[in-house]
Amino acid sequence: MAVIAPAKLDTYRALGRQLRADSIRSSTAAGSGHPTSSLSAADLMAVLLAGHLRYDFGKPDDPPNDHLIFSKGHASPLVYSLFRAAGAISDEELLTFRRLGSRLEGHPTPILPWVDVATGSLGQGFPIAVGVAWAGRRVLRAPYHVWALLGDSETAEGSVWEAFDRAGHERLANVTAIVDVNRLGQRGPTELQWDTDAYAQRIEAFGWDALVIDGHDLEEIDDAFERARDAERPTAIVARTIKGKGVSFLEDREGWHGKALKPDEAEKALDELGREPSRAFEVTRPDPWTPSRLERSAPKMPSYTDAIATRKAYGEALAALGDARGDIVVLDAEVSNSTHSEDFKKAHADRFFEMYIAEQQMVAAAVGMQVVHLVPFASTFAAFFTRAYDFIRMAAVSRANIRLAGSHAGVSIGEDGPSQMALEDLAMLRAVHGSTVLYPCDGTQTAKLVAAMADREGIVYMRTTREKTPVVYTPGDEFPIGGSKVVRGGGADDAVTVVAAGITLHEAIKAADELNAAGTKIRLIDAYTVKPIDRATLVAAVKATGLRIVVVEDHWVEGGIGDAVLAALAEEGIGPLRYRHLAVRAMPGSGKPAELLDAAGISARHIVSAVGDLIKPT
Amino acid sequence: MAVIAPAKLDTYRALGRQLRADSIRSSTAAGSGHPTSSLSAADLMAVLLAGHLRYDFGKPDDPPNDHLIFSKGHASPLVYSLFRAAGAISDEELLTFRRLGSRLEGHPTPILPWVDVATGSLGQGFPIAVGVAWAGRRVLRAPYHVWALLGDSETAEGSVWEAFDRAGHERLANVTAIVDVNRLGQRGPTELQWDTDAYAQRIEAFGWDALVIDGHDLEEIDDAFERARDAERPTAIVARTIKGKGVSFLEDREGWHGKALKPDEAEKALDELGREPSRAFEVTRPDPWTPSRLERSAPKMPSYTDAIATRKAYGEALAALGDARGDIVVLDAEVSNSTHSEDFKKAHADRFFEMYIAEQQMVAAAVGMQVVHLVPFASTFAAFFTRAYDFIRMAAVSRANIRLAGSHAGVSIGEDGPSQMALEDLAMLRAVHGSTVLYPCDGTQTAKLVAAMADREGIVYMRTTREKTPVVYTPGDEFPIGGSKVVRGGGADDAVTVVAAGITLHEAIKAADELNAAGTKIRLIDAYTVKPIDRATLVAAVKATGLRIVVVEDHWVEGGIGDAVLAALAEEGIGPLRYRHLAVRAMPGSGKPAELLDAAGISARHIVSAVGDLIKPT
Repeated sequence: MAVIAPAKLDTYRALGRQLRADSIRSSTAAGSGHPTSSLSAADLMAVLLAGHLRYDFGKPDDPPNDHLIFSKGHASPLVYSLFRAAGAISDEELLTFRRLGSRLEGHPTPILPWVDVATGSLGQGFPIAVGVAWAGRRVLRAPYHVWALLGDSETAEGSVWEAFDRAGHERLANVTAIVDVNRLGQRGPTELQWDTDAYAQRIEAFGWDALVIDGHDLEEIDDAFERARDAERPTAIVARTIKGKGVSFLEDREGWHGKALKPDEAEKALDELGREPSRAFEVTRPDPWTPSRLERSAPKMPSYTDAIATRKAYGEALAALGDARGDIVVLDAEVSNSTHSEDFKKAHADRFFEMYIAEQQMVAAAVGMQVVHLVPFASTFAAFFTRAYDFIRMAAVSRANIRLAGSHAGVSIGEDGPSQMALEDLAMLRAVHGSTVLYPCDGTQTAKLVAAMADREGIVYMRTTREKTPVVYTPGDEFPIGGSKVVRGGGADDAVTVVAAGITLHEAIKAADELNAAGTKIRLIDAYTVKPIDRATLVAAVKATGLRIVVVEDHWVEGGIGDAVLAALAEEGIGPLRYRHLAVRAMPGSGKPAELLDAAGISARHIVSAVGDLIKPT
Repeated sequence: MAVIAPAKLDTYRALGRQLRADSIRSSTAAGSGHPTSSLSAADLMAVLLAGHLRYDFGKPDDPPNDHLIFSKGHASPLVYSLFRAAGAISDEELLTFRRLGSRLEGHPTPILPWVDVATGSLGQGFPIAVGVAWAGRRVLRAPYHVWALLGDSETAEGSVWEAFDRAGHERLANVTAIVDVNRLGQRGPTELQWDTDAYAQRIEAFGWDALVIDGHDLEEIDDAFERARDAERPTAIVARTIKGKGVSFLEDREGWHGKALKPDEAEKALDELGREPSRAFEVTRPDPWTPSRLERSAPKMPSYTDAIATRKAYGEALAALGDARGDIVVLDAEVSNSTHSEDFKKAHADRFFEMYIAEQQMVAAAVGMQVVHLVPFASTFAAFFTRAYDFIRMAAVSRANIRLAGSHAGVSIGEDGPSQMALEDLAMLRAVHGSTVLYPCDGTQTAKLVAAMADREGIVYMRTTREKTPVVYTPGDEFPIGGSKVVRGGGADDAVTVVAAGITLHEAIKAADELNAAGTKIRLIDAYTVKPIDRATLVAAVKATGLRIVVVEDHWVEGGIGDAVLAALAEEGIGPLRYRHLAVRAMPGSGKPAELLDAAGISARHIVSAVGDLIKPT
């Protein structure tokens, strides 16, 4: 172990003390928060900030900056105390912690420029850190190092092991996991308590090096960080720490999780810690580095004159997008031959990320990659995005820009049965703040929407279909997000509005043509944007068709296109509707796609019947 | 290694051959399916069925029966071939695989009496198996053993490590993980390929014993199963296998995942395998065993005359329910002091299961426990059920009866900020087949609904609130599931219908009283059942109030109470509504609960204003 200069040690010691004091001061001012979880990691973070982090707090977007992600987001008092110590925020702002309107929220979010992503749902920051590291290593060839601080409790989350697995296998030596083993979780001891060897054994089994240290020994910490940055494999620092360390009546005590000290308790604690005023510490800036400019020209998107599955068109469109833009990266959870993201892989293997069957890590890595301004598209079966819903939800809190594509939606997948059928994905993705939900019906539309996804902010989801579907549109058609298309009818004599999208649009076209032959015109709307739904077109159609409307979708009854349409119409005061909702109401089984569409009551025959029902004289 | 009698070996060999032939025959008849994934595990399953499983196929519900769960559910041809070999299904039925109406779906589901749970979303069957084992060990003291067959690909799922962790720590020696390491995933090699030592190292680090074997050596397999059943710690059998084993042109070949052989290919394969007709094999029945009768008397549920948080009432109600019923089990993801399931733990520690922060494993264990007819309640912060959405979705496919309670819903949690706020849980749980969604507003209502949850089938969700809320109801009030309550108004002079639930009901009561004082009566409906929503009461109210309606909820705009109400009214043809939807539209931050309710536009003040808006003469 290298000897540290006494002055350096003094700096570490002083900063550790200050971080503790400021964590207590800010949380006591707020009347809530997690001071004891901050105190356990204060020495670790003091040594990191003053000795190892390379970061320009004046230029948080500087590409060579290291990344520090608090996977244990509840230690936010420590995060903000670090920013205070770096001179990034004032003492006054520090004391606004958790107040309405303050940037210093209960858990960190990127409304602060020094925070990459929102954390607070445990087991997410670390997987995201792996994504940041991977992007730096493979795409950007950036010099930055990624430091993730984990709590011991959160290692119970499987997602943490997905992250250890991926980073270990890829030998991402530019990420370091700092595990704060303070023995106490929210309601009592953790499963492994202070068995740091058990942590190390697990982590090493996943392809990492593990350094077990005393998390309050400044020299051991310093040495570990140095070794971690220089290592050839990813390194985890398993730090035995004491929750509440530094304050006698908090140390290793149960019942103190997530509790601020009362003012008199805080005074006692500050007496123990010493009352030096908080000050700014020097943080080393990174060496200057400018990333290569990634190519960005106008993509030439494919269009189609033959039937093609929208999942296949998705893959081909991605490949075309990747030809034009070097910032596009694609992730897939071991089903790239089904989602067809393999078309991108074949063209741009260096920007394709195989995540194996780890959907949580896939979404987390996508979030991490957009932190460094890449444009990630992540794909799996639509049903399996349910596995990552917490990550998608949190991505919205992170104000992340990610694109998700779910294939094999609905009963129309056929024989594989309900475990593989997404029937809740539209509901799930609609209920994400600021999300966009797209559902194309043919190849040309898919390709144009894929191009639009690249520049759309927020969580953008595309639902694709397993089966081949016929061509509906011509290459000249445009599909602005937020729009819809009237594909049949549109005149004054339309009797009923029918709203469909994706696979059901084709059933509705069959129904429209059959009805037309029998003398009934319908106005068929292709709701390719499920969110935000095209309110104006819906309102006009429903008014023009005597308030008669059929919505048909390959999705459960709840939360999908039907609910979206009704909300739009209700907010416009349109009614009373004569409404029929054709959606999946019984648990499907296996069968051929056409059989299952029919059994679910969402085939052309059922649309014809619903329309007939609505125009029957009463 | 014990020597096996030659006759036994012959049986194993014959059964292995038959399972392979039947897996090919059934999938070729279907024209789809996963024969090669079945062939790799055929020897493992032959030895298990003919040598180690204790199961009465004539009495699938017999309590001492072992449990066999295919976590790799795509190997369904092998599952059904086992059932054929056990004489449980006919050869004729075997050949209905994947046809519409057949019980033999693409992935196994419990519409077959010998299948405990639906699998097919990888990484779920094994965590569920841990739940079955844990219930057997701790609650039922049952003699059964639980065997889970895993694919190698699915070990990439973090949920698998949550399961290894929990079972390892609890030393659940009555569960065996059989890992079929066939090296090839869907689109190519797995991450670890045939590095069986890496698997073993990981598994051992999580507290299991691991036996590395050749998965086609019948003696090694036989020995491993014997040791696994007799072990004092849980045992994993890491079996090196060959995908497509037994058919020369399938063995270890890429490009054969999830593909049925064409008829001519199947003929060639059957020629290689030999053409003996399929027959029934002897399966050892378990020793007779009758479980102790669990107490089941009528519970005495608490009622409340003072303000209490519904999460606290939930905990107290659970404890009371547990007093009366021995079949109630409670699981919590390390937040029992927040969800208040700790009240149950204090009273019935033997039936409380600490899952640490592993929400996927928690839901999986609950599903496993209901397999053996226990009545599980699982709780965490409502936001964190998003982590387990895939498990909840699959629980519905499993026709499981589980009860979930999510606390800390909505912006009203206050300072902790958006990472801890459930704002999508109603949307997520509504979009689950056959689900029930409850959202009580006071202690007495909570307690009665908890009692009702115990006997409700399907996925039953309760949303609870962090903050204390005043008493609304008297002990004599009843709250049938599917009902609602009119808590203000109800006369002919009500001007506007207001629908609220949980925390917003209290805001609406304040608004009602304020409006009433100013001469405006509203009809306030407590929609404590969000699904199925009380359509009749809504229709009557809206008709009585000039079609004016305000819905106010602490949830994103999409998929919650608003959407549920609009769907009910639209299907009844009610309109045109004068509709105002007060819901969360902007990303919240931190603040005091009242501040955040107000900032989100869902406080009493905003309700008053929305009502005023609707009654304004136009």
